[in-house]
Amino acid sequence: MTQDIVILAAGKGSRMKSAFSKVLHKVGGSAMVRRVLTTASALPNAKLHLVVGHQGDQVEASCQDFMANVVWQNDPQGTGDALRRVAPYLQDNGATLTLYGDVPLIRASTLEKMTALSTPNTLVLLTISLDNPTGYGRIVRDEQNKVVAIVEQKDATDSQLAIKEVNTGILLAPNSHLQGWLAALTNNNAQGEYYLTDVIAMAARDGVDIVTVHPENEAEVAGVNDRIQLAALERELQHQQSITLMQNGATLFDPARIDIRGELTTGQDVIIDVNCVFEGNVVLGNGVEIGPNCHLRNCLIGDNTIIKSNTMIDESEVGDACDIGPFARLRPGTVLANNAKIGNFVETKKALIGEGSKVNHLSYIGDTEMGANVNVGAGTITCNYDGVNKHLTQVADNVFIGSNTSLVAPVQVAEGATIAAGSTITKRVGEKQLAFARARQTNKDNWPRPIKK
Amino acid sequence: MTQDIVILAAGKGSRMKSAFSKVLHKVGGSAMVRRVLTTASALPNAKLHLVVGHQGDQVEASCQDFMANVVWQNDPQGTGDALRRVAPYLQDNGATLTLYGDVPLIRASTLEKMTALSTPNTLVLLTISLDNPTGYGRIVRDEQNKVVAIVEQKDATDSQLAIKEVNTGILLAPNSHLQGWLAALTNNNAQGEYYLTDVIAMAARDGVDIVTVHPENEAEVAGVNDRIQLAALERELQHQQSITLMQNGATLFDPARIDIRGELTTGQDVIIDVNCVFEGNVVLGNGVEIGPNCHLRNCLIGDNTIIKSNTMIDESEVGDACDIGPFARLRPGTVLANNAKIGNFVETKKALIGEGSKVNHLSYIGDTEMGANVNVGAGTITCNYDGVNKHLTQVADNVFIGSNTSLVAPVQVAEGATIAAGSTITKRVGEKQLAFARARQTNKDNWPRPIKK
Amino acid sequence: MTQDIVILAAGKGSRMKSAFSKVLHKVGGSAMVRRVLTTASALPNAKLHLVVGHQGDQVEASCQDFMANVVWQNDPQGTGDALRRVAPYLQDNGATLTLYGDVPLIRASTLEKMTALSTPNTLVLLTISLDNPTGYGRIVRDEQNKVVAIVEQKDATDSQLAIKEVNTGILLAPNSHLQGWLAALTNNNAQGEYYLTDVIAMAARDGVDIVTVHPENEAEVAGVNDRIQLAALERELQHQQSITLMQNGATLFDPARIDIRGELTTGQDVIIDVNCVFEGNVVLGNGVEIGPNCHLRNCLIGDNTIIKSNTMIDESEVGDACDIGPFARLRPGTVLANNAKIGNFVETKKALIGEGSKVNHLSYIGDTEMGANVNVGAGTITCNYDGVNKHLTQVADNVFIGSNTSLVAPVQVAEGATIAAGSTITKRVGEKQLAFARARQTNKDNWPRPIKK
Repeated sequence: MTQDIVILAAGKGSRMKSAFSKVLHKVGGSAMVRRVLTTASALPNAKLHLVVGHQGDQVEASCQDFMANVVWQNDPQGTGDALRRVAPYLQDNGATLTLYGDVPLIRASTLEKMTALSTPNTLVLLTISLDNPTGYGRIVRDEQNKVVAIVEQKDATDSQLAIKEVNTGILLAPNSHLQGWLAALTNNNAQGEYYLTDVIAMAARDGVDIVTVHPENEAEVAGVNDRIQLAALERELQHQQSITLMQNGATLFDPARIDIRGELTTGQDVIIDVNCVFEGNVVLGNGVEIGPNCHLRNCLIGDNTIIKSNTMIDESEVGDACDIGPFARLRPGTVLANNAKIGNFVETKKALIGEGSKVNHLSYIGDTEMGANVNVGAGTITCNYDGVNKHLTQVADNVFIGSNTSLVAPVQVAEGATIAAGSTITKRVGEKQLAFARARQTNKDNWPRPIKK
Repeated sequence: MTQDIVILAAGKGSRMKSAFSKVLHKVGGSAMVRRVLTTASALPNAKLHLVVGHQGDQVEASCQDFMANVVWQNDPQGTGDALRRVAPYLQDNGATLTLYGDVPLIRASTLEKMTALSTPNTLVLLTISLDNPTGYGRIVRDEQNKVVAIVEQKDATDSQLAIKEVNTGILLAPNSHLQGWLAALTNNNAQGEYYLTDVIAMAARDGVDIVTVHPENEAEVAGVNDRIQLAALERELQHQQSITLMQNGATLFDPARIDIRGELTTGQDVIIDVNCVFEGNVVLGNGVEIGPNCHLRNCLIGDNTIIKSNTMIDESEVGDACDIGPFARLRPGTVLANNAKIGNFVETKKALIGEGSKVNHLSYIGDTEMGANVNVGAGTITCNYDGVNKHLTQVADNVFIGSNTSLVAPVQVAEGATIAAGSTITKRVGEKQLAFARARQTNKDNWPRPIKK
Repeated sequence: MTQDIVILAAGKGSRMKSAFSKVLHKVGGSAMVRRVLTTASALPNAKLHLVVGHQGDQVEASCQDFMANVVWQNDPQGTGDALRRVAPYLQDNGATLTLYGDVPLIRASTLEKMTALSTPNTLVLLTISLDNPTGYGRIVRDEQNKVVAIVEQKDATDSQLAIKEVNTGILLAPNSHLQGWLAALTNNNAQGEYYLTDVIAMAARDGVDIVTVHPENEAEVAGVNDRIQLAALERELQHQQSITLMQNGATLFDPARIDIRGELTTGQDVIIDVNCVFEGNVVLGNGVEIGPNCHLRNCLIGDNTIIKSNTMIDESEVGDACDIGPFARLRPGTVLANNAKIGNFVETKKALIGEGSKVNHLSYIGDTEMGANVNVGAGTITCNYDGVNKHLTQVADNVFIGSNTSLVAPVQVAEGATIAAGSTITKRVGEKQLAFARARQTNKDNWPRPIKK
């Protein structure tokens, strides 16, 4: 059955105290509304409708790639009002699922349970039992356990207040009925708003079956109204992700101290030490070990590579059995062949480093193509930038670069060459040549030290 | 009404196993007793009395700036004994509030609730209801709900043991009565100590009204006797501070992983990643983003500045839209103009960096005045120290400093100048000049590599 | 009484999804089975038997140093089967304690309580009361409170299911009886396995006293079947260790954010900031302060030394009152005398640094013997490696090394010498000499800047 999915994202969210729409605040590295759109897109035959209002331009711009039908709800008057504005765009058949841009952790598996129950004469309601249901609309059932009404907190009798099953606001209604129900909604209430929830009473009246589905997890239906709730969902998502990682066979030294904002894929026997952050798409091969306080973004790490404490890797590819860090920074465009070594206080950028080559300390290697078995001494700098253009440094296999060398690009160092420590290399060094470019040392006797002023 | 505030800080604290007075151990970056003194100072017309004893010299020296009346309690014999020693200094009128140097999280708002109830015929007691009151003195009330006694654990009947409301030890007593009560205290008890608590029975006996106030938060009345309790209050304070930050509109990726030891002020839409530490006074402008593992102390960060992972900033001012880190260290006296960029493995100290200037990698910039739009190459060092004196480096606008440059201060580089990579600059470079100071490169053929010894 | 201790380590552990034996996964930096072996070795007169099977070669190789009697259990058929294979090696007298390689936190104190009760006619059972005993074998006692049986979950009556005391699997049985019991075990059960637990019924039948001991801590008897449980025990151990540290008088800014994988010894008034990791043997003197995010392994830190954020120290000795970091890395063989200072982005390796000497920034000091009161300028590099051999740099007392100096080893700098900034030093500098090795500066007018390509 074709599916309309309406995502409400027009709210003001003033408790966020933000210049940005509430639904654009991120959980796990993605804007909340984008999470909901991604989950909704996973359903078959989904047609997405995105209802925007407050800061709606921001929301529309941020979600363009989903190609949802954007419906404006200026001067929002409740969830029912939102659906009424979408009504003209709903398909004749099928059903409409209503989701919320500020309820970001809803799972596709839960929505699939809902759609599996959908028929032209069934309204599917997502409900949950809460230890403390205070404030939520209670699900009232008759003796046959059929849902007959939702009673709001303020209207509930004492026995209704004792009901723990509550409405989550997420529901799936058959379009054939929904159009009529929406048209019949009124705003005769204290807030002067149109409530989508009112369609449930209409469904009961019209003899439509009301069936319920529960989420696996309470966090699926938790909404965000302030930054405390935002942080709570962030930690909940991180917790869930860490459990999944461990189930897949990764060792986490502290499941409460890992942050994954995107997708982390781990091979067999990966070990991740405390306080690491992963962003975007990160793939770790078998036997990879990540030390404490590392920060990896969009990178591919080969088997048995060791990444030591305080290393940052961004948009890079690292081969097998490499040894990286501590305090290394691999910037975008770094590609390490197998067995390469990048040590402390080393920065690389757009750099191919050949198999077994070592850049052990205090160096900057940028815009460079380096062969295999090269040894780069401490303090080596590729001078790749002349103030306006970037230039290439090419270093062939088996080169030995002495410490404190400056390589002024564009420049080539040929196979087997040696560069003496402290040299500034401005022209090509040939195969097996020694290049040096430094002044002769002079010692002067009895040098008078400066005196304290 | 004028207010005497007595802060008891004479205890030994032997479970701390410390060479320092217990009350000098810090919570949230401040010695516990200083927190109490600060809170007490916030009350109007407060006259502070600080009772010191064990390691009293340390305490007195650490708290000098509060200009409290320091009263020595050598050979301490209980809380009542402490008050008796302060008695000669109490004002004739007004009331005396007793606080504790090892109960650091008491809030001014709670004390204000107490003082609001104070009259010459009222004793105000701070009490709290505990789920588990074991060990505390129970508050016994009569049928009119009036406090009539405090019964210690060991003296309590079964029904008294069931009372959950307990004495916190914090009380506010009218001076007109207090002097007589203190004089009447005895030490006829197992410990041979004078208990301040005994004045409550005297107050009841004398027909003084005993009224109670509750703290907002249990942690307000929690005392510290060992480092486990110290750590618990540290985390409680950090938790409270993180809640406040989020309420004010900051996004915290993990509220359990932020440490604020002083005052952190945040503009709109500030984002703080995991595991950051803030010390002293830190002000973050609108839209500031702080990456993981940053450590900021006494600094001002302008709007929309991005501070990346593992950055340290100390006693510095950073302009708007700057880009700092990762692995940057701004030491005291660093001032960055707008749009400046400080990259990885860069240290700055007493350095003015002009608008849009960039120090991207592996550099030390100290004792420097740098203009706008300067590009500093990797590995640049200001040689500011001759072993005894520090000297100034001045770099004008639009200068390009090649990589691995040494700037031997005092030295000036004029507007638009260029320095060739690998140069050691010892004398002034004029406007639009190119300076170079490096040896010519020589290549020798067939250089024999060293042989393994 | 002599003691046989059997440690079962033959299981497959498939939920670990690992290429390594489950018992080789680490908790607190040690393989689980090695923890159990270490604990068992602490018991007097212990004779260790290690039962291996799946990936038994790995386990045997990893535990060689314990010189246990390794018994192979190929095709494992339960705990009883394991004991039957060990039976031929058990001593005639004494008793046999059965432990588990995947129950790593069992304490020697608990085992000592068990052995204290051991007699030739007593079976000692380790049991524990659980709030939720579901799934465990219940301990059934008679009216005299004597253990009469262990009833498995599936065989238990409703009243037995209500029993909260459960079997931990750890038991100590007198060898004189045990041999017969093991021989009598059968595998007539759903799994077709031999259960060691069955000996308890035999003991009851034979009139052997069954006495019970409880562990101090539930974690002592917790087993690891997957990485979620592994992480839970890791955190539990870390929690216990942090409590002990605080009881011993260390201040921890966050007891939930410290990781000790080995042994950490602290002097008086040590302060450890958040997120530090300690590995191997680390000894911190009195008054040592460790900043956030530090990583220390096998090192000795003298009194009153301050270690600032993001510092790594490995196999090094640091004197008193040193000042290290932030962003410093001391690699193996670093020895700092008192009052030495190692600053940001500095790496040391096999380096003796004399009293009061300073290496403040951006330097690599390797294979070096440095005297007292030396000042090493920023960007100084010891060029210790010629591509095949490492060479020594010797720097005497009171030397001043200018910034960006390269010291090409082997080389000596004598007492009181000065090296000019930017020099590459290849030959000895004599006492009080000034050495310089840099080109003269040339300034060219009207230098044309490169143009954007």
